Parts: sequence; C-alpha cells; structure tokens
Amino acid sequence: MPTILGQNQYGKAENRVVKITRNGATHHIRDLNVSVALSGDMDDVHYSGSNSHVLPTDTTKNTVYAFAKEHGIESPEQFGIALARHFVTSQEPIGRARIRIEEYAWERIATSDANSRFIGADEVRHSFVRKGQETRTAQITYDGESWEILTGLTGLTVLNSTNSEFWGYVKDRYTTLQEDYDRILATDVTAVWRHNWTDDAQRPPHWEKSYAQTKQHMLHAFAETYSLSLQQTLYQMGSRVINSRAEIDEIRFSMPNKHHFRVDLEPFGLKNDAADGAVYYAADRPYGLIEATVLRDGAEQRIPVDMTNL
Amino acid sequence: MPTILGQNQYGKAENRVVKITRNGATHHIRDLNVSVALSGDMDDVHYSGSNSHVLPTDTTKNTVYAFAKEHGIESPEQFGIALARHFVTSQEPIGRARIRIEEYAWERIATSDANSRFIGADEVRHSFVRKGQETRTAQITYDGESWEILTGLTGLTVLNSTNSEFWGYVKDRYTTLQEDYDRILATDVTAVWRHNWTDDAQRPPHWEKSYAQTKQHMLHAFAETYSLSLQQTLYQMGSRVINSRAEIDEIRFSMPNKHHFRVDLEPFGLKNDAADGAVYYAADRPYGLIEATVLRDGAEQRIPVDMTNL
Amino acid sequence: MPTILGQNQYGKAENRVVKITRNGATHHIRDLNVSVALSGDMDDVHYSGSNSHVLPTDTTKNTVYAFAKEHGIESPEQFGIALARHFVTSQEPIGRARIRIEEYAWERIATSDANSRFIGADEVRHSFVRKGQETRTAQITYDGESWEILTGLTGLTVLNSTNSEFWGYVKDRYTTLQEDYDRILATDVTAVWRHNWTDDAQRPPHWEKSYAQTKQHMLHAFAETYSLSLQQTLYQMGSRVINSRAEIDEIRFSMPNKHHFRVDLEPFGLKNDAADGAVYYAADRPYGLIEATVLRDGAEQRIPVDMTNL
Amino acid sequence: MPTILGQNQYGKAENRVVKITRNGATHHIRDLNVSVALSGDMDDVHYSGSNSHVLPTDTTKNTVYAFAKEHGIESPEQFGIALARHFVTSQEPIGRARIRIEEYAWERIATSDANSRFIGADEVRHSFVRKGQETRTAQITYDGESWEILTGLTGLTVLNSTNSEFWGYVKDRYTTLQEDYDRILATDVTAVWRHNWTDDAQRPPHWEKSYAQTKQHMLHAFAETYSLSLQQTLYQMGSRVINSRAEIDEIRFSMPNKHHFRVDLEPFGLKNDAADGAVYYAADRPYGLIEATVLRDGAEQRIPVDMTNL
Repeated sequence: MPTILGQNQYGKAENRVVKITRNGATHHIRDLNVSVALSGDMDDVHYSGSNSHVLPTDTTKNTVYAFAKEHGIESPEQFGIALARHFVTSQEPIGRARIRIEEYAWERIATSDANSRFIGADEVRHSFVRKGQETRTAQITYDGESWEILTGLTGLTVLNSTNSEFWGYVKDRYTTLQEDYDRILATDVTAVWRHNWTDDAQRPPHWEKSYAQTKQHMLHAFAETYSLSLQQTLYQMGSRVINSRAEIDEIRFSMPNKHHFRVDLEPFGLKNDAADGAVYYAADRPYGLIEATVLRDGAEQRIPVDMTNL
Repeated sequence: MPTILGQNQYGKAENRVVKITRNGATHHIRDLNVSVALSGDMDDVHYSGSNSHVLPTDTTKNTVYAFAKEHGIESPEQFGIALARHFVTSQEPIGRARIRIEEYAWERIATSDANSRFIGADEVRHSFVRKGQETRTAQITYDGESWEILTGLTGLTVLNSTNSEFWGYVKDRYTTLQEDYDRILATDVTAVWRHNWTDDAQRPPHWEKSYAQTKQHMLHAFAETYSLSLQQTLYQMGSRVINSRAEIDEIRFSMPNKHHFRVDLEPFGLKNDAADGAVYYAADRPYGLIEATVLRDGAEQRIPVDMTNL
Repeated sequence: MPTILGQNQYGKAENRVVKITRNGATHHIRDLNVSVALSGDMDDVHYSGSNSHVLPTDTTKNTVYAFAKEHGIESPEQFGIALARHFVTSQEPIGRARIRIEEYAWERIATSDANSRFIGADEVRHSFVRKGQETRTAQITYDGESWEILTGLTGLTVLNSTNSEFWGYVKDRYTTLQEDYDRILATDVTAVWRHNWTDDAQRPPHWEKSYAQTKQHMLHAFAETYSLSLQQTLYQMGSRVINSRAEIDEIRFSMPNKHHFRVDLEPFGLKNDAADGAVYYAADRPYGLIEATVLRDGAEQRIPVDMTNL
Repeated sequence: MPTILGQNQYGKAENRVVKITRNGATHHIRDLNVSVALSGDMDDVHYSGSNSHVLPTDTTKNTVYAFAKEHGIESPEQFGIALARHFVTSQEPIGRARIRIEEYAWERIATSDANSRFIGADEVRHSFVRKGQETRTAQITYDGESWEILTGLTGLTVLNSTNSEFWGYVKDRYTTLQEDYDRILATDVTAVWRHNWTDDAQRPPHWEKSYAQTKQHMLHAFAETYSLSLQQTLYQMGSRVINSRAEIDEIRFSMPNKHHFRVDLEPFGLKNDAADGAVYYAADRPYGLIEATVLRDGAEQRIPVDMTNL
C-alpha cells in the first residue's frame, strides 16, 4: 500500500455539561463545553474499519456526564485531568488523551429590595445571569506519564482611548499610512498559557485563583502600558503574567488590531481631533493580526502557532 | 403596468460609530451600531431608476458620523431622535425615518494596586473592557408629527436552577414528555418596550435611567417568580415593568426555552436527582419559543410580532 | 390588574428533520428545519401558570417527526399545511397555527468514471453533497378557515460586474459620494412571496415547480436589468415574478447593497478602471439596505415589513 | 529580563479582494479573502515598541490590492506565491512570509430564454450567483529558500443515506450505544493537502486543475466506500487523493460525524426502519470528531494537528 496513516485522533466534541451544586438554598453553577480527543493504536479502524480498539465517541460523551456527577467540577483543569487519566489508564489501546474545555461564566442576579412583593432578597440564591465577556479555555493532555496543562481565554475585548501611538515604521512603495500620535488601541485577546505542573508528584496550582489573577495581570498590563505598537503591549501583557505567576512558563497571544479609524469630518466643516474626544469608525475587516509567544527565560516553547478551539 | 409598488424603505445599515468624550484624564465611551431606513415619495426610483428623490445611503452614513460629533451621544434614543428629525425635516421627499440602534456596553478596567511598577491606579481612566452580556437596542420612528420610541435588549441569558415546574398540560397521541417538579428554567431574553412619549411637547423620559431600571425589573421578576410555565414567568416580567415604569405602555418578549435536560445516569449506577445538585445536558435545538406582549390596560398594541434587529 | 396580555404564541422552534425516501437503490432526501407557533385561548398559562390548555412544545416536536413518517415530505408547503391543520383541528384551545420551515438543498454526488476500482458509477444513488446557495423558506398559517402561504428564499448572493450606474441623486451638506457610471452591483437576496391560494376548495399550486421557476425569474431579472439603482433592479425582479406566476400576488424583498469599492491604486502608479477589469474591496459594514414590496395591482399588502426566520 | 520573546508573526488579516477580468463582454471573477503573516527580526518592536523593522500591516493590505492588479489572480496559490516572495525578498528584516487565502466560488447565472423581453440571453456574460458549497483554502509559506504550499477546502457537507455500519466496538462501563447496521453517514469535510513542489526550479502543478480533481477524488471516495467507521471512510478519501495525484504527498482531514439519529416513533405506533426510508433527527452538538493525516509512504508529516483559518 503506497499510503500510510499519520497523526490521528478521535472523540466526542462539544459536550455541553451544566453542573448545579446545592449548598442549602444557595446554588452554584459550572457551565462547560467539553471535547475529547483520543489517540493510540488506531491503525486497524483506518485501514479496515475494524472497531475492536475503538471506544465509541458516544461512550466518551457518557463518561463526561457521569464524571461530572461522580467527581464534580471544581475547575476545568481538575475535571479535564480526571477525564484524561481515565481514558488513558482504562483503555489499553489509548496512548494519549487530550481534553479541551470552554467555560462560560455566570453571575448571581442581584435581587430586588426588601419591599419586594415576592420573597426576601437574600432567599434568592439560585438565579443567574450569564456574564458574557471572555470564555475561559483549558486543554489537558496526558500520555500516561506526564501532563501538559494549557489554560486560556478568548473573546476578552479591551480598548484604550489614548496612550497609543504608531510611527517610525518602514515605508516602501506601497505605504500610504499616516503616522498617528494619539490613536485608539483595541483588541480581542485570545491567550493560552502553559503551567509548569507536569507530574502527579508535584503539587498542582490552585487553578481557580491562577486563572483569575492571570486575567487581572493581562488587563492591568494592557491598561498601564503606554503603547508604541500592539506588539509592545502584547509583550508587556505576557511578561507581566510570567513575572507574576510562578506556575506559568509560557504564554501565547493572538490579538487582532481592531481598527478604530478617526472619521474625516472636514468636508462637513467639523474638526475631529483625538484631544477633543473624537468620533471613530469601528472597522470589521481587514484587521492587523499580532501573534506571539512570551517565555520564561530557559523554558521550552511548546504552545503551537495555531490552536483551534475544540 | 399590472404590478405596483408597496411598502418600501432604504438607508445605510450597521454604521459602527464609537464616540469618545474626554473629561480631563477621564474618558467616556459610547459604542453604537446605527441603521437608517427612510421612506416617502420613492416611486420613481423603483419604476424608472431616477434618483432625483434619493439621498444616497452614503450620505446617511456621513450624517451619522457628523451628528455624533455635532450632537454627541447621550443615549441611543436621543441620538436616534436627532437623526430621524433631521432626515424628515430636511428632505422634502422623506416622509418617515426609522433609526435602529444597537449599543454595546463597556466597563472600566479596574487598575492594579498602588505598588504598580507603571503608573498610579487612579491615573488610568481611559481603559475599558467590553462588558459582554446583553445588547441594548432602540428603534426611533418619526413621521414629522409624532414619535414612536421602542427600547429593548437582546442576548440577556438567565437561569434559575430551581423553583420551576411543568405539569398539568394537555396530553394527546404524540405526547411523551414526563412531568417535572424541579427543573432548570433558562432563557435568552429579547425584549422590546414602547415608551408613551410621542410628542415633542411632552417631557421625554430619562432614557438612561429608564433602561437601567427596566432591565433590573426584568431580572428581579425572573429571579423571584416561582414558575409553573415560562409563559407565567414572561408575564410576570412584563407586568413588573409596566407596573414599575410609568413611561412604558407595552412590552414584548421573545424567549426561547433553553432546555437543560437532566442526564439519565442510571445505566452507570448513579442517581442524578435535582434535589442533590444534578448534571444537565444543555441542548441547542430544538427549543421551545415563547413570545408575548404585555400591555398597560387600555394601551394600544403596536409592537409587531416579529422584529429583525437592523 | 393594571396589565393585560396581548398577542402571544408558543411552540417548538428549529426541529431538524431529515427524511430519506428509498426507491429501490435510488434514495431521495428532504432536509428541513421546522418551527411551530401556536396561539389561541392561552390567558391562563400567562396569568396563573395553569397548563390545562397547553399542548407541550415537546409534543409539537414529536408531531413533526411522526408526520414526516405518516405523511412524507413532498414540499415544505404541503408538510406545513398538514401540521398546521392538525394543530388547529385537533386542539380546542388552538385558534391559529403558524409553521415556519427552512429547507436545505442537496445534490447527488457525480460518481467516478467506469474505471472506478470500487463500484460502477450508476450504482451509487445514495450519496449527496449539500448544495449550499440559498435556503428555501416557507410560512404556513391557518386559522381553521383560510390559509396564508408565504414561500421565500434567503442567502442567494448575486453580482453583476457591469451594467450598473448610480448618479443624479440628491446632494446635501453631508454628501461626498462620487457618481459612478460603471459599478459592481451585488446583493444577498432575501425574498418572501404570497400565494393566492387560501382555501381548501381551490386547487393548490405545484409548490415545487412554483419555487424553482420563481427563483429563476428573479435571477434572470437581476441579470438582465441595466440598473440605475438597486431599487430599480428590485422592482424588476418583483415585477417579473408577479407577471410570470399567476399563483403569486405579492412579493417582498430585503436586499443589502453589498458594496464593492474600486480600490484607489493611483498612489502606486496603477490605473484601476472598471473598463479594464478592476480590483475591488468587498466591504462588510455598513451597507445600503433596500426593502420593498411589489404587488399585483389590486392585491392586498399582507407581508409584514420585518420577518424573522424562525 | 527574565522573559523572552518566542515565535511571533504579524500582518493584515482578511483582506477581501475581488478581481474582475474582462474578455470583451465576457467577464471573469475571483473572490478572495487574503491574510498576511510576516516574521523575522522583530525583537525590538516587542521589547521597546520601536517600529524601525515594521512594515505596517496597512502596507501589506495595499500590497494585496496592488498585486491583484499588477499580477492578476490565476489561482490562490499563484497569487500567494507572488505576495510571499515580495515580502521576503524586498524587506531585509522579514525572514518568512505566510499567506493564507480563502476563495469563494461563483457560477454564471443561466439566462432566460430567447423570448426575454429584455436582452438576448447570450449577451449576458457578467452576471454571477455565489456557488455556496465549500470554501477553497490555501496557505503559502516562503522563507527565501523553499516553499510550502498547502491547499485545502472547508465546509463541504456530504451524506450517504446507506452503506454505513457501526458495530464491534469496545464496550466499557459507560457504553450504552446500540450497534447499527444501516445508518446515515454525514460530515462536513475540512481537508488540507501538501504539494511536493518546494523549489522555484521545479515546474509547479496546474493549481486549478489539481484543486478540481482533488475535490472530485474525495467526493468519489466518500460515495463509493462501504463504511464500517468514519475513520475508514476518511482513510479511503486520503488514500484516493495520494494515489491519484502525484503532486500531493500528504493530506489531513478534520471530519465531524454529523449525527443523524433515527427517531423512535414506536410510542406513536409507527415503524421507522432504515430499509423503508426513515425519519432522522439531525443533531447539532455533541458530535464525533475524526481527524487524521494520510501520507505517501516515505513522505514527511508536516501539516500541523490544528490549523486555524486565517
């Protein structure tokens, strides 16, 4: 046979699992989208269609729901670790499991005042509104020996209305852009960071706290950087995270430059200077796209250039 | 000619306008998507292609940007009123203008602590993160005499993890559903409400405060209603708004029943009762869809059954 | 009670039903998305949560699948008629049923040549590729006495690379647009047309043939109109349909003007005239939006200004 | 500094370029979405914000449009090669250019019959309807020495209504799936294949013909494979391409198993056997996801596990 099988994986993608935990009248919610990808000794199913090594994707789905009940969901990382360990250790042909998770955040609905006609405010502890804002992501990979834990976020849209310049760039035959000394800088942050926890013998990070603080470091660095280029801002964000979080060795960003063009109002006899508060056109496409990895000095670069979500 | 022209309108849709207002070092942002639809004496352009009555859609776009500078953006409603009035009063052939607006909310980035290596926390007043959550909407219509102002929201996703039942329904040959005495109730709220302000001689509502409080009333009613049907919850939400806000006479909801099915874990020897905190499968399609109008007694029903966004 | 219930409806939306029909080795496929909306005597469920008049949305879903088996799917219209009649005639509280349907087209996979290593070409009659292109739509409404059948399509993207001009328009203070005597005209056609069949005693149209020919008339009129405005093109399309199809009395279009701007290449010493074959920037937003109804003279205008899809 | 910069790239993404070529009255159209990513000596812009090595993304956009005029668009691959070569050879700091392209297909509008009231059918050669169906993709990478050309497609949805079975799989504690001997097999094909052309000294493939035939081979193999697993079908598709196209050494697929579940109609007294033509529920999520690479024996595996589109 002149063709051979290369890298392959299979599983059930986008299992939407919601877990409610009740603590008396106070409820808690975790809302995940879980994708399973398994690989190992899978030549036969590709070459001949024999399923003798294939745990059905339907079974991987069932496992996700059963594990949510049996093990609970403390964090996407802990839940993914439990799943990945199970598939690799319980199925002989499976050599590697990769679990990808999206998490959607909810916040409690602030209840109405004490004069509510219905019930007392502090009795309503089971009502939630979806927070919107970013989606938290995680990718947990296990090969039976060591772990790779990538945490991340996507869809975090941020904007500075000043403290951004762009000038001093290369000019060639096709350059028409004017330099700008006071522009809007806006982006949708997608970031993935790698924890240096790889071994069951190590103490794992506090996943929840780590996520919350990493997000804050990125937001602060974005806000506090006087920017001469989006690349500089990106590097400051990554550097702030690595310097502040000992459990993280590598972080990669994909950041579109969401252009806000100051509208030319001169034809209508109007000035539109940034310094006076300006009117901008928020463009869709095309957009600049800036992508880079920031590493702890000496750390290995492992996050791939491209990562799809599921 | 055996065919004739019926209802028609035209304009520029989805003008993305961002307005920054500077108050010293503190900046403010409004982020809108504005769609213009004009109608009037437009037979010729349809029958013969003569554009002699046609203000170009490109001009309506320019007007949106110029008005953002000239008049500012205090609220979607005030901005839409300025635009609609302009088109109807300045263009003889235009008999009616309808402005549709989406607004995306931003919140300030909370800055890092006083020990920041960069700059003092309270100096950063120009950094924003998009809030996510619901999109605010407005539709402003003017015919030269009276106003119709519809405010609304879309994409407000809410969930009660208990206090919802569904039983006592009709059973026919095709009914297999089991009754449920403790289910999750979740929906994406789309709502449109009509203000009773119609005349320049009246004092207009405080649009910003009206929006914020109407949203709160809906959330509170959702949270505080012990629900026997999504229709009942919808009606309580609408009724709460009408009873609490004198400036609103009519409200219409479109609310999908976002099904969360309790997973059957018995094949795996696991109980999954709601009372113990359960695991749910969040389904995409199909979904129940509940739509209704709630009116102040005696008010006219004017909001159409279907409203597209733009 | 100072509030009252207005227009309301409920049902199961987006039931995805695929029906395979086998004719020996030759299979046929219909692929629908069916949404049910019922209304009638539904005050109680809104006011008190009593479901005694409520056929569950889950039951309406089951009915869709059972009817696909019992009645087959000859056309979206025939299938929607069977469903609407069932709900109104079998359920006392239901006064009106509205069925909305999307249909996705498939075409057969042309098989490989006679030398195929696998099987003979003409034996493969069960393989399909989704056609893409437009989605066919239908809305069937029944109140127990008469029918309203709206057929339509959405997502039909068309483009003329010449024979389009735009000039002679109104110029006001905000007008900057240059006149154009050779532009691209492109749009995504959404159209809805009303059949004059309303009564079981009349002979219904041949729904399949009517759809195919109506689509062709629109495409031909688009291609063959030398256009001075998108409104003129729209009217020609509608007029062609009404004049050619006796079963149709009214048609409404929503047509975005998908702008293709000729790029200014002069800064690079390049000419970019339309006559020589030009390079265009295909813009996303904003876009002109042209909407109008064309009627058979004397016919009533019944299609609403806005129609959502589901 | 304890952090360092890793892999990075930047450029303008999603430049929407439409090129019309006129051959007398007969026009031709190419409709692309072009994304540029450049990398090289970019430390300074990340560390200090100095743009002295940075060709602005705006300039890369201008280059795309100018090149469409100067070089034309014969194929996505030829166009991407011209762009990538330009950036690497004209800019000292740029060591590598990666161009990603999506192409949308159009077909001519078949004109109306000779009795058209408007103009003769064969005179209309400038009218197009977007084909829908798959998006063609290309990724062209150049480092100044050798080329890597990946061609692909996404969104090609195919379905076999029989000749698919699934049984003989592993059963563990969480397995509930029933074996099926006559099921629907449906998927949305995303595929990327690598050409073995790497050097300007070699004669390049006929990119247009190569694409068209590769797509046909995939469709034929899908239709003609009696399938015991989606993995087997995938391998047959890849193997058919490698065996039939000497210019291709590697192909990778990402194929969701778009589940079509046969509906249980027994509660309604109806049989729903596949052999009689059945009714299916087309599910959204979760879905099986099968991904694998097929290689010419001896070829290197270079296509990454994940590829984002832009």
